[in-house]
Order: sequence, then C-alpha cells, then structure tokens
Amino acid sequence: MSTDPERPPARPGRRPGTSGTRAAILDAAGQRFAKNGFDKTSIRAVAADAGVDPALIHHYFGTKQQLFAAVVELPVDPEVVLARVDTTPLDQLGETLVGAVTAVWDSPAGTGAVALFRSLVAGGDTSPARDFLLSVIFERIRRRIATDTDDGRLRVALAASQIMGVIMSRKIVKLDPVTELPIDRLVAAVGPTVQRYLTGDIGEVAAADGAE
Amino acid sequence: MSTDPERPPARPGRRPGTSGTRAAILDAAGQRFAKNGFDKTSIRAVAADAGVDPALIHHYFGTKQQLFAAVVELPVDPEVVLARVDTTPLDQLGETLVGAVTAVWDSPAGTGAVALFRSLVAGGDTSPARDFLLSVIFERIRRRIATDTDDGRLRVALAASQIMGVIMSRKIVKLDPVTELPIDRLVAAVGPTVQRYLTGDIGEVAAADGAE
Repeated sequence: MSTDPERPPARPGRRPGTSGTRAAILDAAGQRFAKNGFDKTSIRAVAADAGVDPALIHHYFGTKQQLFAAVVELPVDPEVVLARVDTTPLDQLGETLVGAVTAVWDSPAGTGAVALFRSLVAGGDTSPARDFLLSVIFERIRRRIATDTDDGRLRVALAASQIMGVIMSRKIVKLDPVTELPIDRLVAAVGPTVQRYLTGDIGEVAAADGAE
Repeated sequence: MSTDPERPPARPGRRPGTSGTRAAILDAAGQRFAKNGFDKTSIRAVAADAGVDPALIHHYFGTKQQLFAAVVELPVDPEVVLARVDTTPLDQLGETLVGAVTAVWDSPAGTGAVALFRSLVAGGDTSPARDFLLSVIFERIRRRIATDTDDGRLRVALAASQIMGVIMSRKIVKLDPVTELPIDRLVAAVGPTVQRYLTGDIGEVAAADGAE
C-alpha cells in the first residue's frame, strides 16, 4: 500500500490486472454502443471485442443496461429507479418520476447524466442514449399505463418531452428560477403535467395514433 | 481579380462589394454574439469590427434581434411571432405559443432552428441563444403575465422547459408519436400545460421566488 502522503491509499483488494480488463470491456462496449446503438449491441459481441468471456462482463457489470450505465457514467443503477415505476401507485407516477429524475440530476454524480443528455442532442435519433431511453425506460413505463384502447406510446413520449425539458432548463441552459427551485416545488409544478400526460385527458387519443 | 485556375469563377451579376459587406457584417456579428452574448453585443461594436457604418447594418438587417436571427439563420423574424404574444388573449397564450413554435420548427427552413437548439445545448448557460431567449422572448412573455404579486419569471421558465422539451422530442431525438403528431393534436395535448404554467395553479408561488 502506498505511503505517499499526497496520494490517497489504494483501495485494498484492488488488482491492476482487473482494472485493465474492466477498462477494456468499457472501451469495447462504448464503441459498440456508439456504432450499433443500445438495442443491437450484445454482451457477447462486446466480450468478443474485449477478448474476454461474456460471463466476466456479467460478473463485473451485471445486465446490458447496467453496462450501458457504466459506459455513460450514469450516477445511478437504472434498475433501482425503474423498480419504483413498477411499485408506485398509478396516480402518483408523475410526481414520482419528476422527483426521482431531478434527484439523480441534482446528485454530485449528475455530471455523467449531463454528458448523456448532450450525447442525446448531438446524436439525435441515432444516439445510443435514445435507444436506451426507448427500449428500457419508455417500455417499462408504457407497460405500466397501457390499456386495451391506448398503447401509451404517445403518453410516455409526451411525459419524456416534459422531463427532458426540465433537465434542459435546470441543468443545461440554467434558467434561474427553475435551476434553483427546491425539488418539492418542482415536483408540485411539473408533477401534475407528467401525471396528466400519463393518465389524464390529452385531447382525443385513439389507439391507432400510438401504432405504426 | 484573381485568374488563379484553382478558384471557381465569380458568379455572374454578383457584386463582390455588397455581398462581401453583408458577409463581413454577419461574420463580425457571429463572433461578437459568441464572445459577448446577445445582450452585451451592440450594433455599434459589430459595425466597428466589420469596418462599416452602423446605419448600414440597420439597413441590411434591421434591429439587433433581426441581425441575430440572420446570424443563426432563424427561419422567421422573431418580431412577427412575438407580436402575437402581445395580441393573443391571455387565456389562449399556451395554445398559441405551442402552435407558433411548432409551425416554425416544422417549416422547411426549420434547419436553422435545429442548429440554434444544438448551440443552446452545447453552449449551455453561456450560449448567445440563451441570452436571446431570456432578454427578448422571455421578457416579452413575462411582461404579458406579470402581476403585482408574481413577476412571472418562474412561470415563463416552466413554459419554456415544456416547449424546449417538445422541440427536443419532435425534432432532435425524434420520439415517433410526438414527431408525427399533427400540430393541432400537439396543441391540444401540450397547450394546456403551457397555459397552466403561465396563468394557472403551479403550487405555492410567492413573488419572492421569482426575485433574485
């Protein structure tokens, strides 16, 4: 263990070899996600690129979405936030989503999320972040609100448009009153919007509009 | 004039003087806006940089905000859209804004607006586009809705967050149902949100929250 007073002590148990393998996996995954998108990137392909066994990737990172979260340095495990989508009462989904997303972005680790957002804007409709948003996050929320006559796609997209807008005004463009607003005030102002998009009256929505 | 065979011939009928002057003004303005922001850039300073008389800039481009619109290739004269802010009944402001902004972005010339949006994200809170948004567009809407107890700043910022989010989902990330939605349907879904932010109940808003 280093005794250099300028450097923090190395974490016990950390092996340099391991760290190199992790870095190689992250590097290979980053390139695959950027080239093929989230959906079409497989753990197997990343493993082949990195020259490791797929089981090792699962061991280090867990699921493909957790690997993606590590690549873009998402400050939270998306699974933890999404678990709340499944358990929150339907009529509190709007407030819960706004509160959860804002809390992540306000956390000290929110820098990674800002980078993700910028990649979403830079990459537009080819961004791996967009794929991830659609195939993981949207799909989970959509399943929660879908009915026999409304597949929920438009509703989730509208909710996402408001949440992306809040992130943009709070963290990117920094419009003062929104940037400084306490989370509970933001939830009180924006939560009802997201709730209406998800479960309320949004004009005449026919099931056909949600379909291709 | 150069007869260098490597260079394409000058377009017939094009006058280097006029076109060169316009280009020099646009170039000087672009650099000033990028360096000092919209608010702190003066026509006088741009004129000095471009080596022309300020009156010539007004002659070619009109006001400072029209010069900005030309620099970022905004597809509409902002003054035309903003004039509607002053004349639309207060209780129709939400729908009118969503309809007007979407129409601009959907127009064939919307490419310039996409570029402006990207510059807003890339530049964040130092972008000239942000300055323009705040000092020209926000201020005009804020004056319309301000009351004795609420300066309207938070309300306008929330409305902007929703509109930026719609632009982002419709034109940048391209979330299918929002991208393809006819404008009247989008206005029916999103208009009430913007209206509520501007004039409705958004939780406990004290005048003090809008102040510094």
